[in-house]
Amino acid sequence: PLGAVHLGEDRARFRVWAPNVGKVELVLQGKVERRIPLEPEANGYHQALVDGIAPGARYHYDLGDGKLRPDPASRLQPEGVHGPSEVVKSFSDHTPGWTGRPLEEYVIYELHVGTFTPEGTFDAAISRLSYLRELGITAVELMPVAAFPGARNWGYDGAYPFAVQASYGGPEGLRRFVDACHSEGIAVILDVVYNHLGPEGTYLADFGPYFASYYHTRWGDALNFDGPHSDEVRRFFIESALHFVTQMGIDALRLDAVNAIVDNSPFSFLEELGEAVHRRASELGRLVHLIAESDDNDPRLVTPTFQGGYGLDGVWNDDVHHALLALLSGERVGHLQDFGLVEQLAKTFRENFAFTGEYSKYRLRRRGRPAASIDPRRLVTFVQNHDQAGNRPRGERISARVSFEKQKLAAAVVLLSPFLPLLFMGEEYGETAPFPYFTSHGDSTLVENVRKGRAKEMARLGYAEEPFDPQDEATFRRAKLDFQLRTTGDHAKLLAWYKELLRARRDIGAFAAEGGRQAVAFEDERLLYVRRW
Amino acid sequence: PLGAVHLGEDRARFRVWAPNVGKVELVLQGKVERRIPLEPEANGYHQALVDGIAPGARYHYDLGDGKLRPDPASRLQPEGVHGPSEVVKSFSDHTPGWTGRPLEEYVIYELHVGTFTPEGTFDAAISRLSYLRELGITAVELMPVAAFPGARNWGYDGAYPFAVQASYGGPEGLRRFVDACHSEGIAVILDVVYNHLGPEGTYLADFGPYFASYYHTRWGDALNFDGPHSDEVRRFFIESALHFVTQMGIDALRLDAVNAIVDNSPFSFLEELGEAVHRRASELGRLVHLIAESDDNDPRLVTPTFQGGYGLDGVWNDDVHHALLALLSGERVGHLQDFGLVEQLAKTFRENFAFTGEYSKYRLRRRGRPAASIDPRRLVTFVQNHDQAGNRPRGERISARVSFEKQKLAAAVVLLSPFLPLLFMGEEYGETAPFPYFTSHGDSTLVENVRKGRAKEMARLGYAEEPFDPQDEATFRRAKLDFQLRTTGDHAKLLAWYKELLRARRDIGAFAAEGGRQAVAFEDERLLYVRRW
Repeated sequence: PLGAVHLGEDRARFRVWAPNVGKVELVLQGKVERRIPLEPEANGYHQALVDGIAPGARYHYDLGDGKLRPDPASRLQPEGVHGPSEVVKSFSDHTPGWTGRPLEEYVIYELHVGTFTPEGTFDAAISRLSYLRELGITAVELMPVAAFPGARNWGYDGAYPFAVQASYGGPEGLRRFVDACHSEGIAVILDVVYNHLGPEGTYLADFGPYFASYYHTRWGDALNFDGPHSDEVRRFFIESALHFVTQMGIDALRLDAVNAIVDNSPFSFLEELGEAVHRRASELGRLVHLIAESDDNDPRLVTPTFQGGYGLDGVWNDDVHHALLALLSGERVGHLQDFGLVEQLAKTFRENFAFTGEYSKYRLRRRGRPAASIDPRRLVTFVQNHDQAGNRPRGERISARVSFEKQKLAAAVVLLSPFLPLLFMGEEYGETAPFPYFTSHGDSTLVENVRKGRAKEMARLGYAEEPFDPQDEATFRRAKLDFQLRTTGDHAKLLAWYKELLRARRDIGAFAAEGGRQAVAFEDERLLYVRRW
Repeated sequence: PLGAVHLGEDRARFRVWAPNVGKVELVLQGKVERRIPLEPEANGYHQALVDGIAPGARYHYDLGDGKLRPDPASRLQPEGVHGPSEVVKSFSDHTPGWTGRPLEEYVIYELHVGTFTPEGTFDAAISRLSYLRELGITAVELMPVAAFPGARNWGYDGAYPFAVQASYGGPEGLRRFVDACHSEGIAVILDVVYNHLGPEGTYLADFGPYFASYYHTRWGDALNFDGPHSDEVRRFFIESALHFVTQMGIDALRLDAVNAIVDNSPFSFLEELGEAVHRRASELGRLVHLIAESDDNDPRLVTPTFQGGYGLDGVWNDDVHHALLALLSGERVGHLQDFGLVEQLAKTFRENFAFTGEYSKYRLRRRGRPAASIDPRRLVTFVQNHDQAGNRPRGERISARVSFEKQKLAAAVVLLSPFLPLLFMGEEYGETAPFPYFTSHGDSTLVENVRKGRAKEMARLGYAEEPFDPQDEATFRRAKLDFQLRTTGDHAKLLAWYKELLRARRDIGAFAAEGGRQAVAFEDERLLYVRRW
C-alpha cells in the first residue's frame, strides 16, 4: 500500500509514487532528525521498511532542491495541510460482527462533522447516533473528511485523499465513529472527491503527473486518469478508497461530481474503482456500495459492466428535488428554471428522471438519457442536501423557503418514494440555521479569489443578495445546528412526521419493496397521483 | 439544412448558426453587391430565402464590427479558405441503381487525391478506377477533402467541414468521382475530421461556441460536444456528415481519431452521429457505414447502443500492423517498441487486438480492452497507411523498409486475415515514392511552427533524420505516385501477387466468411500458424 503503514513492533513501511523525483529521502522528526533514503522501485515508486517507528511519528519527504513535502498518501496532518505527516496505528478490517446493509435499506442522513454538533468532532457526533436510529436512519453520510486547510471547510477543498481531518478527530476518531454507527445498526457512507484536489496544501505535482493539464474542471486542472502514468494515479485514488473501506470500516463511498472526471479511456477509472472495491468487499465478506454523485442522468453509471455500464451501485437523482422545489417554492433561479410542471415530478416516479434527453434552458443543451429500467432503489433523492442549501448566497434551507405544511408534503413525497431518501442534518425537525459556504484558507490571495468567485457565481445564477463571506468564522458558526429546536412547537411536530413516514416506508410492503408504480399529473389542480403496489 | 442550399428557379436558402452574433447580413458579390439581412431563428440560427441566386454565386456573412466571413457550412471555397463561399448546385440523392455494399465485402484502397495522379484531381483519379476494380478493390477511401489552405495538404488541416477542396475539383468533381466509382461497383469512404479544425482559415469562433476551451487536443482546442450550445455544434457536424452521404453519394465515413473527441455526456456525439447517419441511410434505402479511426482498442465503438456501445460499424485495428512491422522490419521506434513477438500477431488473429489491457511502454499506461467477441470484419487492418508512412521524417513506405519477399509476406498476412484489409495507394505494386507530411499554409508563423513541431515530434519518437520540409513544394511532389512502375520487374510481380491474394480472399470460402479461427505462435522459429475454416 501507499503511505506509511505501521506494521507493529515499531516498524513501518513507507511507500510513495514520485516518478518526477530521482531520489526521495524520508525525514523523521524527533529530538534527533533521522534521514532515510527510500529505494526506487519499478514505475516510479519509492519505498523503505524502517525500524524505530511508533504511531505518532511525524515525517516529511525530501524531494531534493529544498523541497520538504508532506506525504501525498498521508493518513493524518496533525499540524495542517502544510505541516508534517503522521504515522498512525493500523486498524482491524471491520467492526466485529458487522457485514454492512443492502443498499435498498439505506435511509441516508447527510451530516457535516464540523457543524453537526457544538464541538464539531466525530466523538461529539457519536452522542447523537441513538437519536438517528430512533428516527429511522440506517446510513449516515459524512461530508468529506480529507484533510483541508484550517478548521472550517465543507470538505471539497481536501488536499490529502487518504487523511482524515485532524480537527475532527483524525483517523482514530473516524474509526470510533464508524464502530459506534455499526453498533446502532447504521452504515457509514463517506463522501470522497476524485475529480480535483483542494487549491491549498496540495504538493502532488512535485511528486508526479497526478494532474492532466489538457483537461480543465471548474475547480482547476483535472486529475490524470487517462494520460501517460495514469495507471499509477488511478492506483493512488483506488488505494485511498480501499483504505477507507478496510482501515476505517466505511460501508459506502459517495463519489463527488463524477461528471467532472474526464477520462477518455476504454477502461474507465470509475469502472476500475468499482471492480477493485467490490472485489475487496467480497474478500472481506461485507457489503460495500459505490454511489456516484452526478446530475447527468446517466443510467450507465449503475449499469453492469457486462452491459456496457460502469458497474456502480447507486447514483444521485437531482430531478426529484428540482421538480418538487420548483412546485413548492415557485423559485426559478439556476437549474430550477427548467422545472415547474407536476408532470415532471410524475415522470420521475414513472421513469426515474424528468430529463431523459430533453433540452435544458439552464444548461443550454439536452440533458440525460432514458433510464426507466434502472431499479429506483439505486437512486438517491432528497428534499434538500448541502448543495441545495449552500449554493445560495445565504445558504437558506428549505425551512426558510417554504411553509411548514409544504415541508411536510415534501418529506412525504421523498420518504415514500421508490427511491433512496437522503435527509440533510436537521431537516427532520426543520432546522433554521442556514448552511452557507465556509472556508478557513491560509492563503490570502486564495481567500480573496474564493470570495469574488462566489459572489460572481451567485450573481450569474440570478441571486440579488451579497453572499456571506466564506472566510468569516461567523459564517461557519451560523451553520451549526440548534439541536434543541427539535423538542419545540412545529419542530417537534415535523420530527414526529418524519419518524412516522420512515416507519411507514419500512413497515408497509408497497413502500418498502420495488413493485409496480404509476403516476399521473393533474397540472391545473397541481395534483400528483401516485399508485404503488 | 445549414449553409446555402440551392432550391432551383434561382432561389436559395441560407442558414447559419451564429449565437454570438446579433445580426448577420448576407453579402452577395456581383457587379452590384447585394446585402440581405438574415432573420434570427430560435437557438442562435439565422436564415433567409433569397431570390436571384444561381449556382456560382459568391458570398460572405457580415457579422458586424467589420467581420466579413466565409460560411462555416460553405460547400466550396473557390478562392481558398480566406475567400468568399460559393453557392453550388444541388445533387440527386444517389447514383441511380446503387445501394452500397455490405461492410464485410470491403477491400479498401486509401488514396490521397492530390498525389494519386499527376493532375491531382478527382477527374484524373477516375481514369484509374477500372485498374482498381481489376485489382479486386471494392471500396476507395479518400483522405480528407474538406477545404484546406493552399493546394497541398494531407487533408487534416481542413477548415470547412462541408466544403470540397476546390483544387481537387470541388463538389461537382467529387460527385463525378463517386458516380464513376459506383459504376465500377466500388464504394466510396470519405475520411472526415470531427476532432479539430485546421489551424488556418477557421472563423467559427466568430460565429459561436464551436470550441470547448476546457479540453485540449494535440491539435488545439477540442470541439464543443458536451458544453452549453453543444446540441447545435453537434448538428453542424452531423449535417456535414449527412450532406456527404446524400448530396455527394458517399457510402461510408472514416471518422478521424475519435479518441481525440472529448465528450463527457450521457448521449455521446458519436452515438448521435451513428443514429442520424443510419436513419438517413435507411430512409434512402442504402447501406452507409461509419468506421472509427482509433488506436484505443475499444470494442464499445462497434458495440450496439442497446448493449452500451456507440453503435458504429467499424473501427481501425492498428495492432496487426504494429505486430507485423515489428517482426518484419525489426524497427522499435515509437509504438513499435511495444511489439516484436509472434504471439502478439497470433493474438490479433484469435482475439482481434494484441493489447487488451496490457501495459504499453510507449503510452506509459495500460492500453485496450478485451474485444474477442467483435466480428473481425468490423476491424480495418493494413500493411501500411498514410500515417504509418508519413509519420516518419522522410515518409518511407514499407517498400523502402523491408525486402520484396517480406512485402509479399505482409500482404498475405493482411489480405488473407479475417479483418477488412486496407491498401495504401501504390502499395500493391511496391510504389517507391515516399509519403512525407506536406502543407501549403499561407500564414508564415504557422509554417514555421509546423516545421518546428514536426522536427520536435520526430526527435521525440527517436528518429535521427531531419524531416523533409512540409511547406516545400518538392516534398509534395516526392509523394506523387510513379504509376508506370506497376508494369516493371518486381513491381509487376508484386501486383500479380496482390491480385491473386484478393482473388483467393473472395473465392475461397474459409477466407471470405467469418468462421472458426485458430492461431499459434512459435517464437523461436518466428512462425505463425493460422487455421481458419
